Parts: sequence; structure tokens; C-alpha cells
Amino acid sequence: MREGSAAAGRKNGALSPCAACKLLRRRCAQDCVFAPYFPADEPHKFANVHKVFGASNVNKMLQELGEQQRSDAVSSMVYEANARIRDPVYGCVGAISSLQQQVDSLRAQLAVAQAELVQLRMREPNSSSHLASSNHQANVGESLWSC
Amino acid sequence: MREGSAAAGRKNGALSPCAACKLLRRRCAQDCVFAPYFPADEPHKFANVHKVFGASNVNKMLQELGEQQRSDAVSSMVYEANARIRDPVYGCVGAISSLQQQVDSLRAQLAVAQAELVQLRMREPNSSSHLASSNHQANVGESLWSC
Repeated sequence: MREGSAAAGRKNGALSPCAACKLLRRRCAQDCVFAPYFPADEPHKFANVHKVFGASNVNKMLQELGEQQRSDAVSSMVYEANARIRDPVYGCVGAISSLQQQVDSLRAQLAVAQAELVQLRMREPNSSSHLASSNHQANVGESLWSC
Repeated sequence: MREGSAAAGRKNGALSPCAACKLLRRRCAQDCVFAPYFPADEPHKFANVHKVFGASNVNKMLQELGEQQRSDAVSSMVYEANARIRDPVYGCVGAISSLQQQVDSLRAQLAVAQAELVQLRMREPNSSSHLASSNHQANVGESLWSC
């Protein structure tokens, strides 16, 4: 959608530059590599990416990718740049570390809950419900290891 | 340790440049901002950070931080740069997305296990073990929400 809107903007206005060319004060060519992803109405998006990665590096990274991959690459670079501006020391590595801690904590809690389920099932007098519960436990175990 | 080794290297050899100055082909000054974190024997570390962020941006980002924070900032930038070189489309945002999926999946599995524990405990005939289990469940629940 942004691609269409940026292309239309340049076709209709002819001289309306994308956010990148506006910041870099250069002519926005018809085949500008930034224009489809950095529309003029979102100037902060390019400003942050430029501050963290540098326009020249972003240009190079986009040129090295196929057109189908560029939109995702820009989104991930914008995410990383915003994270680095918010947290200049850890950037989005801070989020990775926090998520990894959550995964470790949840795995430990799940192991405790599953161990307790096994104990409770062993005490169950009804053998048919015991069988059903055991099958269920096997499924939970499988999904845990597939993470 | 790296700070000491880099400083000693420059004091003893006087002209031995750090990995950054070597790559940028410039004189490595006594107060070089890169030298403590990019020793000459780890050239790929600076090469990747330079390729992704650009030496000028890394320099600026380090100058804006206190000396105590620079080592962590370099480590997180090296991590991000390596991830972007390994995966030019998603970089370390790919790891964030994968970890977030693991957290969601583990939370769902824990909720299922906890619901099953509640059911099994309600069927338990022994009230003292029921009480002990209930207390345990409250703790597990608290740790879940503290994530």
C-alpha cells in the first residue's frame, strides 16, 4: 500500500521527494530505492534508521535484497533503529534478553506444573481418567520440546 | 581485560593500531574511542559493526555514552551486526519474533497444565494435600503474571 501511495505521490506531484531524499536534500529519482518504504508523511521513520544505520548502509542493504524482501527488511531496520534510540546501550538486544528470561522462567514453571500433574494422576483412583490425563500430558510434553 | 590489553598494546608497540583504525586506515590515537573494544586480534568484530552501522555512527553512539556503558553498547551492537549479516532481511528482529512465539506457546501450555491441576485437585479426597497443592498453585500463578 505504501509502495502505491509513494509512487502515486511522485507521479502526481513529480517533484515531491520521499522522506529519505527530503532529509538528505537530494532529488528523489523515479527509481529511488527509499521512496517505496519511506513516504514523505513519516519523516521520523527514515530519520531514526539514518541515525542508527546511516543512509548509505541502508541503501546498500536494500540493493543487496530482492524487491519482495525489502519491505520486511525496512520494517526490521526501523524496529531496530527505534529500539537503539530508546535504549542506546542495549537496543533491541535488551528485548531479546528479557524474552529469553521469560522463556526460561515459563519453562521452569511448566516443568513444575507437569511434575505435579504426574504426581496427582498417580494418586487418581479412576484408571480411565488416568489414561486420558496421561495422553494429554504426552501432548503437552511434545509441544514443549517443539519450541 | 580487553581495555587493559588494548592499552598495553598501544603503549608497548606505540604504533599498533586497533582493529577499527586498521580497517579505516587511520592513525590509532592514544584516546581512540574504538581501541578499548575492538582489539587488533578480532578484526571481524569491527568489520561487521562497520558494515551494518558505519564507523561514524558507532563513533557517535559511543561518544554519547559514559565510559562504563560503552562495553555493553559495543557487545549489543556486535550482536545486532552479526545477526543482520546472518539474516539480512530480519536481523535480530527474527530472534525477537521467534522468542515471542515461544513465550506465547509456553503461556498457553502453562494455562492448560494449571487448569488441569485445578481439576485434579478438586477431585482429591485428602484435604491437607489439597491445601498444600493450592498454595503451590498460587505461587506458580504469581510467577506467571510477573513475567
